[in-house]
Amino acid sequence: MKKADVVHLILGDRRRVPARHLSGKAFAPSNIALCKYWGKREQELNLPVTSSLSISLGDQGASAVLTIHDRAHDEIVLNGKSVDVSAPFSQRLSHFLNLFRLNPTQRFSIFIETNVPIAAGLASSACGFASIVKALDALFGWELSNKELSILARLGSGSASRSIWQGFVEWHRGLRDDGMDCFAEAIPDVWADLRIGLLILSAKEKGLASREAMQRTVTNGSLYSAWPAKVSSDLFLLKQAIADRDFQTLGKTAESNALAMHATMLSAWPPIQYAIPETLLTMQKVWALREQGLPLYFTQDAGPNLKLLFCKQDVEQVVSHFPEVKVVDPFVA
Amino acid sequence: MKKADVVHLILGDRRRVPARHLSGKAFAPSNIALCKYWGKREQELNLPVTSSLSISLGDQGASAVLTIHDRAHDEIVLNGKSVDVSAPFSQRLSHFLNLFRLNPTQRFSIFIETNVPIAAGLASSACGFASIVKALDALFGWELSNKELSILARLGSGSASRSIWQGFVEWHRGLRDDGMDCFAEAIPDVWADLRIGLLILSAKEKGLASREAMQRTVTNGSLYSAWPAKVSSDLFLLKQAIADRDFQTLGKTAESNALAMHATMLSAWPPIQYAIPETLLTMQKVWALREQGLPLYFTQDAGPNLKLLFCKQDVEQVVSHFPEVKVVDPFVA
Repeated sequence: MKKADVVHLILGDRRRVPARHLSGKAFAPSNIALCKYWGKREQELNLPVTSSLSISLGDQGASAVLTIHDRAHDEIVLNGKSVDVSAPFSQRLSHFLNLFRLNPTQRFSIFIETNVPIAAGLASSACGFASIVKALDALFGWELSNKELSILARLGSGSASRSIWQGFVEWHRGLRDDGMDCFAEAIPDVWADLRIGLLILSAKEKGLASREAMQRTVTNGSLYSAWPAKVSSDLFLLKQAIADRDFQTLGKTAESNALAMHATMLSAWPPIQYAIPETLLTMQKVWALREQGLPLYFTQDAGPNLKLLFCKQDVEQVVSHFPEVKVVDPFVA
Repeated sequence: MKKADVVHLILGDRRRVPARHLSGKAFAPSNIALCKYWGKREQELNLPVTSSLSISLGDQGASAVLTIHDRAHDEIVLNGKSVDVSAPFSQRLSHFLNLFRLNPTQRFSIFIETNVPIAAGLASSACGFASIVKALDALFGWELSNKELSILARLGSGSASRSIWQGFVEWHRGLRDDGMDCFAEAIPDVWADLRIGLLILSAKEKGLASREAMQRTVTNGSLYSAWPAKVSSDLFLLKQAIADRDFQTLGKTAESNALAMHATMLSAWPPIQYAIPETLLTMQKVWALREQGLPLYFTQDAGPNLKLLFCKQDVEQVVSHFPEVKVVDPFVA
């Protein structure tokens, strides 16, 4: 099954209806996985090996504005800078937009503004693709459900399926080959005291793209076989922790899940190590502060940066130990 | 089954025969596992979950001299310094020596000299216990086989079973509950061009003893379930590489095995991270040099230090990149 077939399943006749508006605009938040998406069971549709669970970052994410034109190429402007048509980012995006053109000559202008660092492990492709799918929906007037938007966003980038929603989000693995049961859904709990701290330890673009790292790990990571069972128990613990507002279990499970994901990468060949010395030192600092009684945990995605997890009442203490931290209230939006 | 029962199985009536000599002296080499021993299936007898494979370090290791006296306590002198009877090291050693006393009041003087750093991940307990078992054999005149010495050394420290031998050594997991089929054996191949480089990145004693780290990993490491299969394929690859003098496969398998062992530790809770920033930077340096064509690999034990693996013809290049390295010729002895 191809991406275009999934688009047809979702849009049906709407696929052939001209845009209802002159432009479509939408925002989608970044999301931080507390239980990671790590491994695809199918490449074309981005179907994951396991379910995953994230928290969206409120007002931190990407805004997309789409308009239609008929010049030779899509026009992509990212954070005020025009992106060359031959750049990998343009090609990936235009390839994705091919799924939605009314006719082969229809072209889009895409203006994306992000307030999270690109390619520094802050899931910018997730909020990018989610905002574009939502902007397409606004432009064409499809009026899709969030579940349908989530499936379309997944075709652009797996974790984009989660950035359709705010708050806690579970992305269901599903069982079907066409992925129609593989979408994200919000967990309705609001945890007003929860805080996320973004720690940029290196703003350099990471060396190895996460999709390459994921694929290598699934293909030859000697410990990857133990990952699905780890995810399954972590999902159970996280959902319980959310329901019970049990911060310690939430933090511990998220940290342990992230370390296990990085552990599967270390077991691949060639080995994959996203940590830099600052990552190690910051982990050790978190562990030392926790020993001293501060309820503080971290998670790490496919990059060297860390995201801290803590509660509102500890914001001051966390900031005093990590003056460079950017504190996000995920339920502010 | 208790340790004393195993000693009885091996020594039989010799257990009651007075020492034949006034002193017993022996040397045992350190060993570096190319496929790690990580996890016990039985605590009392140090029976491992898997087999393992090491290379002994030739003239690098521990020399022990044992004599008998009848004062109140064993007297332990380590590298010229008297060790207090209440120190954990003394207690562990005296407890081990209880297995061999002719009568409860018999005491030993133990002089141990090592030329490898203690507790810096250079397997000093392995060569220590192996040298003591060999010195006991010399003192009492038991004339045990290396296989029997290996079983006795295992009762002191698992990896000591391998330090009875020089060269490549395989420690067989065995199947029996009494561990009588759980011993190390030399692999006769001599690989004259193989070199080991010891890189002391931190000479501080490590925070968490390897037996604690191992136990925690086996108990709750979420990826540990994948470790035995990893070992089984690595043992196969290493034995083939040794037979074929295939350095690339030897190096790759050893490095990948070490990283997978550390990955299982990251998946434990609380997480175990022996790497320090220097460890990461050195790994990255090795990877970069390898990219440039230098056949250089590393392995890492339960500590921050790395051991480099390379061939004789590259000694100069390795030394130029790592001026602090101590090059060991494992087949010099």
